[in-house]
Amino acid sequence: MVNWFWRKGARVEVPRLRLRNSDEATTKVDLAELTPETATFLGQAAYLQLTIFENLSRAMATAPTTEAKAVISGAAALSLAKHHALTAEIERINLVPSEVMDSNRPAIDRFQRMTQGSDWFESLTSCYVTAGFLDDFFMRLAAGLPGETATRVSTIMRTPSGEAMIAGELLAAIAANPRLASRLAMWGRRLVGDTMLVARSALATSDNHDTDEARIEPVFTELIAAHTRRMDTLGLTA
Amino acid sequence: MVNWFWRKGARVEVPRLRLRNSDEATTKVDLAELTPETATFLGQAAYLQLTIFENLSRAMATAPTTEAKAVISGAAALSLAKHHALTAEIERINLVPSEVMDSNRPAIDRFQRMTQGSDWFESLTSCYVTAGFLDDFFMRLAAGLPGETATRVSTIMRTPSGEAMIAGELLAAIAANPRLASRLAMWGRRLVGDTMLVARSALATSDNHDTDEARIEPVFTELIAAHTRRMDTLGLTA
Repeated sequence: MVNWFWRKGARVEVPRLRLRNSDEATTKVDLAELTPETATFLGQAAYLQLTIFENLSRAMATAPTTEAKAVISGAAALSLAKHHALTAEIERINLVPSEVMDSNRPAIDRFQRMTQGSDWFESLTSCYVTAGFLDDFFMRLAAGLPGETATRVSTIMRTPSGEAMIAGELLAAIAANPRLASRLAMWGRRLVGDTMLVARSALATSDNHDTDEARIEPVFTELIAAHTRRMDTLGLTA
Repeated sequence: MVNWFWRKGARVEVPRLRLRNSDEATTKVDLAELTPETATFLGQAAYLQLTIFENLSRAMATAPTTEAKAVISGAAALSLAKHHALTAEIERINLVPSEVMDSNRPAIDRFQRMTQGSDWFESLTSCYVTAGFLDDFFMRLAAGLPGETATRVSTIMRTPSGEAMIAGELLAAIAANPRLASRLAMWGRRLVGDTMLVARSALATSDNHDTDEARIEPVFTELIAAHTRRMDTLGLTA
């Protein structure tokens, strides 16, 4: 098993091939044992949704056409609704959302800086790649929350996030300007590295690095496979 | 009657006093006769809500605290819901929202550039001042739409827009830094001028300038009185 995720200080490398060989069982591995306590989980998930929403807002503001603006505003509304559903869960356990969200802010704010992109195409690709990955990640992590909270939060994370709408915009942009493809493919590789780092920072790890790693690696392998499919949808190599 | 609104080329002047002397009848004057056709109305109202939402998103992204971010995200969700309710009305008459919204884009894009503000305090004041004014304006203008559309659109425009939440944030900011007061009061005066111009551009005027003016002036006088009350809420002079 290649220890590609844990190399300290090194840029995260995303394996290119080997991901689709699904000879192995396709049972979904879950992350339940690494789920942090409820408040921490909710604070991180809620603040990340807010970040995704902010990125969508930025992409909306700089959209080249009113039509693109309208499409992205639909996706933004879905992310914002997700954020508010998560803050409602925080209020349900009698905590103040903003205080809880502050706990993991530095890691997430760094993530946002790294994933902004230098133009509309990169920003929109960020929204597509990071929202897909993180929804998937937090849905799995939600399985480790107590009882009914797990069910409710999984339902929130499973709510569609406008992925198809955004993919449509990106496909149209790439078709109109095929030279975008290689730039966005490269950008996608950077994004998945930063997204994995912020996801990683949301896990409650134990003192035993090796055990943690053994748990995390198969999950990330699946998440990266899903990422690869998402890039395929755009006709891009992951 | 002072012809302050129509002076060509001159900066719009907002009368300071004389606005509250309500010896006159307090019957609400309406704008029904200047309501443009339904598609035009909806395109402008929907695109302006989108603009208000974009301004709120920007204010959210630059908010100094997570608490302020959370509050503004609530207001942003309300504006976005209003925008989508209006685009649903456009779809109801079998038109494409983005095409309809494109019709008055230049005036509204100019409005957005003029009202962005140079920092978070100014941006948030813009959201507060312009959303309040424009919701009020389009609610009156909606009275001239045909039958049930008028009722539905009035209901949309009357939906709360997070004004109280934003006022709370601004009051706290001014209390923490009293020197902001004079700067924001001045900014409010500029904003109301630009807001009136964009509202004005949404009216269907006739060839008879004098008749139009006689209709418009009392409405804008009322809208400015409402603006003055909004600034009073912040402890600022309009």
